[in-house]
Amino acid sequence: MAQNIYDTPAFFAGYSRLNRSVRGLAGAPEWPAIRAMLPDLRGRRVADLGCGFGWFARWAAAEGAAQVLGLDLSENMLARARADTADPAVAYVRADLEALELPEGRFDLAYSSLALHYVEDFGRLVRTVFRALAPGGRFVFTIEHPIYMASTRPGWLVREDGGRTWPVDQYAVEGARTTDWLAPGVVKHHRTLGTTLNTLIGAGFAIRHVEEWHPSPQQLAEEPALAEEMERPMMVLVAAGR
Amino acid sequence: MAQNIYDTPAFFAGYSRLNRSVRGLAGAPEWPAIRAMLPDLRGRRVADLGCGFGWFARWAAAEGAAQVLGLDLSENMLARARADTADPAVAYVRADLEALELPEGRFDLAYSSLALHYVEDFGRLVRTVFRALAPGGRFVFTIEHPIYMASTRPGWLVREDGGRTWPVDQYAVEGARTTDWLAPGVVKHHRTLGTTLNTLIGAGFAIRHVEEWHPSPQQLAEEPALAEEMERPMMVLVAAGR
Repeated sequence: MAQNIYDTPAFFAGYSRLNRSVRGLAGAPEWPAIRAMLPDLRGRRVADLGCGFGWFARWAAAEGAAQVLGLDLSENMLARARADTADPAVAYVRADLEALELPEGRFDLAYSSLALHYVEDFGRLVRTVFRALAPGGRFVFTIEHPIYMASTRPGWLVREDGGRTWPVDQYAVEGARTTDWLAPGVVKHHRTLGTTLNTLIGAGFAIRHVEEWHPSPQQLAEEPALAEEMERPMMVLVAAGR
Repeated sequence: MAQNIYDTPAFFAGYSRLNRSVRGLAGAPEWPAIRAMLPDLRGRRVADLGCGFGWFARWAAAEGAAQVLGLDLSENMLARARADTADPAVAYVRADLEALELPEGRFDLAYSSLALHYVEDFGRLVRTVFRALAPGGRFVFTIEHPIYMASTRPGWLVREDGGRTWPVDQYAVEGARTTDWLAPGVVKHHRTLGTTLNTLIGAGFAIRHVEEWHPSPQQLAEEPALAEEMERPMMVLVAAGR
């Protein structure tokens, strides 16, 4: 079973204060880039793997999705997602992505935002998603970028001249990475970008788009703190088609 | 026109002394991984973009390729490639990959080893290669990894505890990177891995395999100096299909 860090009080409290938790999709700077990778959702059946507070599920239903299934391991998050959701097209179910089972050919879009780097057995999950998609279906997800995750000691380094750089080491050594973020002992699973893509290809997916997210010039002008995202990618956005 | 650094005397002399120049494919630790990505070459027509001393061209002909066209900008390299090649299936032609033109549907495999990061207009080249391949043809290439190329000051950093890490900065800022390697002022063109893959997809290619090369346990045992390739990838291997 995956670590259920979101139900740790300190983590949940910290996560709840993040801009993307308070403001939803509009608080996530990568959202415009994700949205550009999504198909038209009218009449479509959507699964959201790691739905959190349900911001995407509600958006998808508002876009006209016929059914949206939000899946998450955190009871705290599901409770708030349910409380915040009135649309009858949306349902939430507690599920461990490490042991997920889904009906075959049941969805047109599988979506996941910043959740799959918590999954150890990515291959199993990808094969499950492939089977759960109808022909022509899409799998669109974001994960922490392996450049961001690889190092045994992630965090900015400052050179003598004041310039800042991001450390990469142990990139080829895949496996667990334990860091302190919002709470101590958060376990993520580092995979190279090649492994992520080859796992998708091996399951039968066609890679349609790979985006190592960085802010647009307009976003940089509006939010100068995003400049560090030009230095090293924190996340990667992937679209694949069945 | 691309920079013709290989015809700079200091660069050519240094490059000629590299293990991969002296020993050929057997001197390139990534070769077993590349070979595993190649189709059966018997009766196939092959183009080698940046053929250098012709090691791959001769190997492909020995594997049974019907025709091998080696292309390079460096007159020094072509002269030695011609002098070292007796197989009539192999021909060498001087060409600038920045302005390459190839006949349509003429090849079954386009191959390139560590040359395309010298090309500024990658999109033009990829579209040219796509048109030059017959249906079912493959494009297999290696380039310097953007993790290796991105930083304005590439090179190992040593932490206080003695651990070494590789700097990544300016990753999202694509464009020229000038470094001193074998000779001063070598110009390479940094692109994110996402851009490389999306350019292929946009031209019509299907991504088949993406490998951020690292040594095998056996290679590490035989050549301990390769351990640094576990810390950060120096090159990426890509196979795409038309």
